[in-house]
Amino acid sequence: MPLLRIDLYKGRTDTELKMLLDAVHRAMVTAFNVPERDRYQIVNEYAPTRMIMEDTGLDIPRTEKFVFIQVTTRPRTREEKQTFYRLTTEELERTCAIAPSDVMINCVTCDDEDWSFGYGRAQFLTGEL
Amino acid sequence: MPLLRIDLYKGRTDTELKMLLDAVHRAMVTAFNVPERDRYQIVNEYAPTRMIMEDTGLDIPRTEKFVFIQVTTRPRTREEKQTFYRLTTEELERTCAIAPSDVMINCVTCDDEDWSFGYGRAQFLTGEL
Amino acid sequence: MPLLRIDLYKGRTDTELKMLLDAVHRAMVTAFNVPERDRYQIVNEYAPTRMIMEDTGLDIPRTEKFVFIQVTTRPRTREEKQTFYRLTTEELERTCAIAPSDVMINCVTCDDEDWSFGYGRAQFLTGEL
Repeated sequence: MPLLRIDLYKGRTDTELKMLLDAVHRAMVTAFNVPERDRYQIVNEYAPTRMIMEDTGLDIPRTEKFVFIQVTTRPRTREEKQTFYRLTTEELERTCAIAPSDVMINCVTCDDEDWSFGYGRAQFLTGEL
Repeated sequence: MPLLRIDLYKGRTDTELKMLLDAVHRAMVTAFNVPERDRYQIVNEYAPTRMIMEDTGLDIPRTEKFVFIQVTTRPRTREEKQTFYRLTTEELERTCAIAPSDVMINCVTCDDEDWSFGYGRAQFLTGEL
Repeated sequence: MPLLRIDLYKGRTDTELKMLLDAVHRAMVTAFNVPERDRYQIVNEYAPTRMIMEDTGLDIPRTEKFVFIQVTTRPRTREEKQTFYRLTTEELERTCAIAPSDVMINCVTCDDEDWSFGYGRAQFLTGEL
């Protein structure tokens, strides 16, 4: 159920993008312990003038491979989030050659009642999930 | 005041899109009991490779008519949200022939102080709203 | 660290856009008292049919220069947010000739543990920030 908005610079092929999305999904499924089909990913791609991502003075180098992931999720523990950060960078480095310095993540929390996956029902409330 | 980000697959005409947005707005006004001009809708359209929306294993069929609505709102009751989910699918089915299985919704909550509608003022705090 | 999603109508040049983003960033750095390189801005531009922004009945005129800014941030005081609303409209009017009636802002709050700026670490938790 986490909804992932994934913001990238333009320039990837469809194949490269698919590998990237699969890598992020593997990290998410493991870190948050959710079903394999709990996959909701929305990708936007930007010219450099349309996405400015610096480093808060942390001296983190950014390249054109930079990935920003904004996750909207029901409550997750601090440990789950930290695991997600770590696994996502590991997966993206291993399978897509994206440097850990090029991966930024932000989580936004909502509640069980905040999701309807279809049919106009809130499946976490109806007992379907 | 709810802000609605509406994510769709590419392929709708302007007329079809307008009907869709009007339908969602009618459901929102009724469910949340807000003024008619409390309308803030932002639409993005995607190629299938850029928006992957599965079903958490709930066996919900998705088609190219799929609609995802992410609502940012001040606090709403559980009943208001459930009414919004139901009315939105009803309106979209009735006026746009979108199946209830093709409508997914997520709410994110913020506070009264989190909105400035113009003039640099927080209208929920100044008493204007 | 605030992450700013900035939604505009199409039609600005790169130079105009840069002035707009710089103006918003100055307001943000002052209002939230963050480092200069705490800059994370993502811009999307829309046809009028794809972004409908009315006024909740407040009688606020909107033009094609309209700017919507959605801020995701760790907790900020009410005063900080109100300062941000005021400074942003002042900066945009002074440097970009955007009317204060054309600036709408929304804040969404998350926690320190919700940010990883790179390397798979949560820098607010590790003591790096």
